[in-house]
Amino acid sequence: VTHDARTALPAIWVDGTPLEVGSAHVSARDRGLTLADGLFETMLVRSGVVFRLDRHLARLSAGLAALGIPEPPALRDWIREALRGLAGLDAGLRLTVTRGVAGGGLAAPEPPPVPTSIVVVDALPSFPAAIYEAGIGAHVASGRRNERSLTAGLKTLAYVDAVAALREAQRAGSDEALLLDTEGHCSEATASNIFFWDGDTLLTPPAGCGALPGVTREAVLELAGGLGVPAAERVFDLDALVGGGEGSEAFLTSSLRGIVPLVRVNGRAIGAGIPGALTRRLTGAYTALVARECGVRTAQI
Amino acid sequence: VTHDARTALPAIWVDGTPLEVGSAHVSARDRGLTLADGLFETMLVRSGVVFRLDRHLARLSAGLAALGIPEPPALRDWIREALRGLAGLDAGLRLTVTRGVAGGGLAAPEPPPVPTSIVVVDALPSFPAAIYEAGIGAHVASGRRNERSLTAGLKTLAYVDAVAALREAQRAGSDEALLLDTEGHCSEATASNIFFWDGDTLLTPPAGCGALPGVTREAVLELAGGLGVPAAERVFDLDALVGGGEGSEAFLTSSLRGIVPLVRVNGRAIGAGIPGALTRRLTGAYTALVARECGVRTAQI
Repeated sequence: VTHDARTALPAIWVDGTPLEVGSAHVSARDRGLTLADGLFETMLVRSGVVFRLDRHLARLSAGLAALGIPEPPALRDWIREALRGLAGLDAGLRLTVTRGVAGGGLAAPEPPPVPTSIVVVDALPSFPAAIYEAGIGAHVASGRRNERSLTAGLKTLAYVDAVAALREAQRAGSDEALLLDTEGHCSEATASNIFFWDGDTLLTPPAGCGALPGVTREAVLELAGGLGVPAAERVFDLDALVGGGEGSEAFLTSSLRGIVPLVRVNGRAIGAGIPGALTRRLTGAYTALVARECGVRTAQI
Repeated sequence: VTHDARTALPAIWVDGTPLEVGSAHVSARDRGLTLADGLFETMLVRSGVVFRLDRHLARLSAGLAALGIPEPPALRDWIREALRGLAGLDAGLRLTVTRGVAGGGLAAPEPPPVPTSIVVVDALPSFPAAIYEAGIGAHVASGRRNERSLTAGLKTLAYVDAVAALREAQRAGSDEALLLDTEGHCSEATASNIFFWDGDTLLTPPAGCGALPGVTREAVLELAGGLGVPAAERVFDLDALVGGGEGSEAFLTSSLRGIVPLVRVNGRAIGAGIPGALTRRLTGAYTALVARECGVRTAQI
């Protein structure tokens, strides 16, 4: 399937209006920019269909309610419009909703300004095959994730900590950063949830560790249940992660990268130091799930 | 002194170019917006002169270096240009520098994109006289400030936690939020440093409590030294703050509001529950310092 949209990516809509990519789109006084006062969702588009759009929008709605930002009523229409030119294509779709334009100060203006809604559709990043075949290593961030932040669990625009953690990891020769919460429990990677198979149970940190309730994370927990793999949201620490037997495994989950084997932390192997059997099994099940829910024809998989 | 600039505020410059206030100024793919990947400074302009511009720019430089964002060489020129129409006027000047425009993903692109520099000059907010005369109350935020964040001490764009804390405080009927660090020590207010006079020493939380090294905070520490008031960067907790004797005092400091007496926390009085003598003395000294350094003529004070 080819389509002009492929060459026209990235494509940008603000409040439903398509805009030139190279132009300016947003006010310098938008609180999304001045204060990170907003939320976003990054979604996987397979064959022109968003994987679990409802789950992404539900998480966004909950976040908007928590921050007291009115939910733009036309979000679904604007996403549908952005997807119109994408029939049959794979892409990444980012939806950002900010509190809108305001003067200075931290106080949210009353009455609330009109929120700013941004949809950016771009080609799926071409992740190297090696990250799936050989797995990746992570560097434990020197800073901690704050599980007691007022915005813990919300996908706010405040990602500069994760940017700094990834930068630190890359300078240490690693592909990813693993963030611990303030009590030292594993929380998540910079933009991925973490799973750990300890040989008996598939564990992922609970929300109480500052982990974001990822859409892929949720799908993996479902798949594990369907496969009869014991799974639980449960705290684990770094010693457990790198101190398990040969049969232990770990992987990261996110919307665009999917399931990525995590095989080393700070140079220490997790399990056998190679992608594990359960990771491969869940990757296959996840790929099939996405294809099924997005209506991908078999020949395309 | 009157000037057309007064009616033309706010005024906005992006990379030194003046832009219409009502237009769009920044790309929707600017990492300042998508990831809070940038820093800012809010500066007091008295009589057309920025109070301690050098200190603000030094803090910004340190932050840019920490995040690996190249420092735009023309920042001073752009600020000078923005101040040109402001001779004799008071204002607030916000300088924002982001990592610039990039595609998706958290990794900072190599080579680095051109940073985006935004200057917004606006009229000074008209703070109610009552906040200085009667003082304000604060609500202790239910979430904690993360003193072990990778970006602790940097004035990044990630202010959504502070926005949420202020919103929570206002819903609780309070004017401000007081943030504790993860160990329970007083850290700072949403956009102000905190000082506590325990009857013997003027204390302010050290950087290790997640407090931002404020320019006004630094000036107040200098003034205390000059007045012979014992002062120290030292940890204190909530019990100390509200459990001191009648002689204890507290106040908040920030560039635009200056020194604001803090007289209550969660409904409990600090000291006598009214602005204290030391707070008033430092306020007078600070006002005189700003006037002196900004060259304000006496008649204007």
